[in-house]
Amino acid sequence: MDRKSVAVGIIGFGTVGTGVAKILLKKREELGRRLGFRISLKKIADLDIKRDRGVRLPKGLLVNDAGAVLNDPDIDIVVELIGGIRPAKDFMLKAIKNGKHVVTANKALLATAGKGIFSAAERAGVEVGFEASVAGSIPIIKVIRESLIGDRVQALYGIINGTSNYILSRMTEEGVDFSSTLMEAKKLGYAEADPTFDIEGTDSAHKLAILLSLSFGVPFSFRSIYTEGITGITPLDIQFASEFGYKIKLLAIAKLSNRNIEARVHPTMLPDDNLMSSVNGVFNAINVDSDAAGRALYYGRGAGEMPTGSAVVSDIADIARNIVAGIPGRIRGLGMPEKSGFNIMSMEEINTCYYLRFSVIDKPGVLSSISGILGKCNISIKSVIQKERKREKTVPLVMMTHRAKEKDIIRALKVINRLSSVSGKTALIRVESKGE
Amino acid sequence: MDRKSVAVGIIGFGTVGTGVAKILLKKREELGRRLGFRISLKKIADLDIKRDRGVRLPKGLLVNDAGAVLNDPDIDIVVELIGGIRPAKDFMLKAIKNGKHVVTANKALLATAGKGIFSAAERAGVEVGFEASVAGSIPIIKVIRESLIGDRVQALYGIINGTSNYILSRMTEEGVDFSSTLMEAKKLGYAEADPTFDIEGTDSAHKLAILLSLSFGVPFSFRSIYTEGITGITPLDIQFASEFGYKIKLLAIAKLSNRNIEARVHPTMLPDDNLMSSVNGVFNAINVDSDAAGRALYYGRGAGEMPTGSAVVSDIADIARNIVAGIPGRIRGLGMPEKSGFNIMSMEEINTCYYLRFSVIDKPGVLSSISGILGKCNISIKSVIQKERKREKTVPLVMMTHRAKEKDIIRALKVINRLSSVSGKTALIRVESKGE
Repeated sequence: MDRKSVAVGIIGFGTVGTGVAKILLKKREELGRRLGFRISLKKIADLDIKRDRGVRLPKGLLVNDAGAVLNDPDIDIVVELIGGIRPAKDFMLKAIKNGKHVVTANKALLATAGKGIFSAAERAGVEVGFEASVAGSIPIIKVIRESLIGDRVQALYGIINGTSNYILSRMTEEGVDFSSTLMEAKKLGYAEADPTFDIEGTDSAHKLAILLSLSFGVPFSFRSIYTEGITGITPLDIQFASEFGYKIKLLAIAKLSNRNIEARVHPTMLPDDNLMSSVNGVFNAINVDSDAAGRALYYGRGAGEMPTGSAVVSDIADIARNIVAGIPGRIRGLGMPEKSGFNIMSMEEINTCYYLRFSVIDKPGVLSSISGILGKCNISIKSVIQKERKREKTVPLVMMTHRAKEKDIIRALKVINRLSSVSGKTALIRVESKGE
Repeated sequence: MDRKSVAVGIIGFGTVGTGVAKILLKKREELGRRLGFRISLKKIADLDIKRDRGVRLPKGLLVNDAGAVLNDPDIDIVVELIGGIRPAKDFMLKAIKNGKHVVTANKALLATAGKGIFSAAERAGVEVGFEASVAGSIPIIKVIRESLIGDRVQALYGIINGTSNYILSRMTEEGVDFSSTLMEAKKLGYAEADPTFDIEGTDSAHKLAILLSLSFGVPFSFRSIYTEGITGITPLDIQFASEFGYKIKLLAIAKLSNRNIEARVHPTMLPDDNLMSSVNGVFNAINVDSDAAGRALYYGRGAGEMPTGSAVVSDIADIARNIVAGIPGRIRGLGMPEKSGFNIMSMEEINTCYYLRFSVIDKPGVLSSISGILGKCNISIKSVIQKERKREKTVPLVMMTHRAKEKDIIRALKVINRLSSVSGKTALIRVESKGE
């Protein structure tokens, strides 16, 4: 092979695009030495070609037309960094159609339209790099696809949304409520103006859909993932969690049991001595349990100009190596075509432990009637906290259960919430118990 | 390319060899599906061909002659898993000479003879896989060489010796002394009959030498690494550390400052809120700070049949992909030929914080004379603990310093240890201070 360089075009000159441009330009020499050939940044397309991003571009490099990147015959790799579904999807498919390899950080697009993109890429013989789409600088795609090639992932737990983790960490440290913490996060730039995807768990579910594709060969099953956000978490629940020795984290969970997969995103109580409980602020972490390597945890920055930029550059380098060697497609896009017939379970079928906080009128017999109903539904109680006593007033009654079926919990709560001694909605938080 | 399979031969059928054989045999189908071609285990050589390792081998696969693997023209990849320098080195070089790719978990060999092995491999056009040589199942080689290709590692801290970490964790949990904990570790199989390399820091230094090669382009500088083990750590120091809010861990540290590299292995006090402080038992973890990705931490099992076996298999798969694609050498062996002229600093030149425990005769003026000497040597004190009072008896006087030069500390201790009021040797533990 006599290729001495690979040309890259970027569409989207926002935060991540700026990071990628900085690395490709400032580290041109070093990257060249490490790779043995050059990576040249040929074009960047963005609607806004005026704003100063703190990076000096050679003249003519920045253009306001994505087509100039997509149709440039010299460009080998198109990096899509505009996010969202449209027009990102059209750009990706156009790039693929034009025979270009693509690199993206767009989890929403892959989670919802990944199947089409990957089959188009396969037909066209080009690669799709998506390391930056999950957990920023944490190389989880590479780890699952390459390092764990001889392993079977058994369970995977991720703190993969920095905004939610920042909010929950602050609520835990300061004892303040959700909405004021969200306001603070917006001010500091840790939450977007419209934070819905982050705080409702959608963003975590997008990323989990990608991880499920790689780990279990169930491509892009975003719609099968149970998703619940953090908007209902109160300082009171955080405080009770702490009394039981737990932290509340928004987890994306995937677990294999026999041929069934649990796939769910929701606030979760994690034991204090679990390393994931110490992952605070905007950091991300993913715990992977696999059958040969055992337990592993990968921790790092899940977002930001340079961390995500670094992940994009690692994809560019991997694909460029294959281009120079003349062997695109060295690693299968989704890594693991399983044909295993794994199924994603319905949420009702899952089995886990539960934290339940009832708001009860403090009068004799309440505990007995609630525990009676739980018992009839096959739910056994591990511990109870009932601290305040305010005769005839509403007080919290808190329980931790042993393992139970979600279906049974829902059935029991329906009955309990109708009791005259129960006022207001019962808080429910799923628990990963100690030693698991 | 029409190759449908790649043949592997293993030399050394011990713990890791057994793990590799189990994965290659039991997951043959699955690996084949993931890779798109077969990996066939053709031969295993070991002096002991009788012992039952709990894995059923096809007849004739196990032989007692390494030459049968090294000289088999059908074998593409030789996996060296006997450990130690001789005859491992001869086997590696012979395999390379015979045009075979090699995979090894042998950190002692690479750290001390890596230069020769890598240049022989380069000349022969074959690859050397060594993921399993550092931190077992943690894919740190792949991460540094591939994921951080656009980054510059600034600092790296590893708990990369499971035996030492097990001993320190137990001493911390139970308050027992070093030698009885070592005995317990031997009984449980967490320490070898001769644990010298583990407890004296040599094994960590071997692994650090490999990480230095990848991170800073200073190949295999094992002899330049300052190495101090954990045999001098006492329950008293662990207890004082805890009072200051620290844990004691055996760390392998590499830090870049300007063009100088700190490279050292020694017991280190780490703040409780550093994630590495919560890495207990036989687990390993590596913290990497790099200029683009920022802080990252990788955690997992550092040893054992299946975890290390899994890492070896990931190397086999990577090399096999290149063989099938016809492009051996896709990634440079040491990743980053720097030509940067980085130098490893002498230990005397490093700058860090120190914990000092003096054994002093409790009489007026002791604190004043010791702090006077420290002051004259440019060492300023952050805090002091002097709890016991036993007039005219020996009591511990504990100090935490601000940042100081190791050279100055050595100079000060020489003078202090000669004071009539100081009895016994002063305990010194280097400290990574909070917020770093």
